[in-house]
Amino acid sequence: MNQKRYQGYLIDLDGTLYRGIEVIPGAVHFMKRLVEQNIPYLYLTNNSSRLPEQVAKHLRGFGLPATPEQVYTSALATAQYVQKNYPGSKVLVVGEEGLRHALIEVGMTVTDHEPDVVVAGIDRSFDYEKLKRASLAIQDGATYIATNVDRVLPTEEGYLPGSGTINIAISHASDTKPIVIGKPETIILQYAMDLLHTKPDETLIVGDNLETDILTGVRGGVDTLMVTTGVHSRQDVEKYNITPTFVVDYLDKWEI
Amino acid sequence: MNQKRYQGYLIDLDGTLYRGIEVIPGAVHFMKRLVEQNIPYLYLTNNSSRLPEQVAKHLRGFGLPATPEQVYTSALATAQYVQKNYPGSKVLVVGEEGLRHALIEVGMTVTDHEPDVVVAGIDRSFDYEKLKRASLAIQDGATYIATNVDRVLPTEEGYLPGSGTINIAISHASDTKPIVIGKPETIILQYAMDLLHTKPDETLIVGDNLETDILTGVRGGVDTLMVTTGVHSRQDVEKYNITPTFVVDYLDKWEI
Repeated sequence: MNQKRYQGYLIDLDGTLYRGIEVIPGAVHFMKRLVEQNIPYLYLTNNSSRLPEQVAKHLRGFGLPATPEQVYTSALATAQYVQKNYPGSKVLVVGEEGLRHALIEVGMTVTDHEPDVVVAGIDRSFDYEKLKRASLAIQDGATYIATNVDRVLPTEEGYLPGSGTINIAISHASDTKPIVIGKPETIILQYAMDLLHTKPDETLIVGDNLETDILTGVRGGVDTLMVTTGVHSRQDVEKYNITPTFVVDYLDKWEI
Repeated sequence: MNQKRYQGYLIDLDGTLYRGIEVIPGAVHFMKRLVEQNIPYLYLTNNSSRLPEQVAKHLRGFGLPATPEQVYTSALATAQYVQKNYPGSKVLVVGEEGLRHALIEVGMTVTDHEPDVVVAGIDRSFDYEKLKRASLAIQDGATYIATNVDRVLPTEEGYLPGSGTINIAISHASDTKPIVIGKPETIILQYAMDLLHTKPDETLIVGDNLETDILTGVRGGVDTLMVTTGVHSRQDVEKYNITPTFVVDYLDKWEI
């Protein structure tokens, strides 16, 4: 099916490798073949709430081969972006442990007071005070960055408000559009390829979501493998007018 | 300047009669002339946080003639709308005292559990849990109503997140547009005219804001008097392409 051997894989998590508490058939075998063939990969996720260690542990719980170094989150990409473009900044964080920790790790000062940068992602302790502080800081001139704009989080409880919902509130109150780091924006993709030391034409993005995973590849000139085990089906390809390079129904259909 | 004698006045508050803690020159004289000539009026406000008693007291503090019965808020209009269209409903409220109280007064049951209707307005104790509960209820089929969609609240602290910001978050998370009651929608206008017992061509809307007060009149076929003491100027009329019937710089320029 595929014509070339990719030098690096960027692999989505939820809907691609597992769904809720269940691993998706074929996912473990797919990852084992990558390992056997010594092909570098990263797990690439818009989730900014957890630390890489936590994500890796979660993946290993499904039998998937994962070290913390193989996990690249929108929190890490956001921290890298801030470090590169706003070195030594004071950052107001609307977010959870993964985001806060990533920013501190790259040497930023996390503060609520006169920040240079406002960074916002999923925050399940979001409240009016945080919304107000973030929006006033942005109105006062702070740069506004969103980890990602996924509208909802699919959970056992249902579709809960995601980073995109937190960010639409901050954006509306401050009348300012954020710089977005996560999929389908390509900043996270660039940084992930830097880590893999691969060029766009050597890299493959694997994911279930046309609007995030596949669109990232389309925008970034990187081939994509869509797997129909998650949110989108083959029929959606036409509906969304976002075309993956390859589509499989299960990851074990893919020859590496 | 004006050709007819209006039988009822609907008068905006902030930017029209006062700004922050200061009464606007001419406002007291304007209201006294209405009283002297026995012309019925209502104070018409999108603010849903306070009770009519509190608003009236605040107005009297500026020397403006106001009883609780002369105050009509988006909270009261929302409660009336719910009572009329969803009698006996269980209502989940995202809002403050004024809204909660108005709904209870018209006999609704306020609950967080399996509501028929979700009503949302300004709520300075808004948080992720409320956002989640509202959005899940709407996804489960509850009717979604917004008191008003003013983006921000102008305060001494700056432009703080308004009801429109709370509602854009709920709307985004639930992927549902609300029914909007307050200005510039005309539901609040219809109910206010019912209270005044006036027809559209006998009524005058007085306000400073083109996008709320004046647009309400344009949409509802009611004449409008714009006063340039608040958010918008004469120059904005062309910019926004919303045309008031009359414009004055101060309310004492207006012959009743």
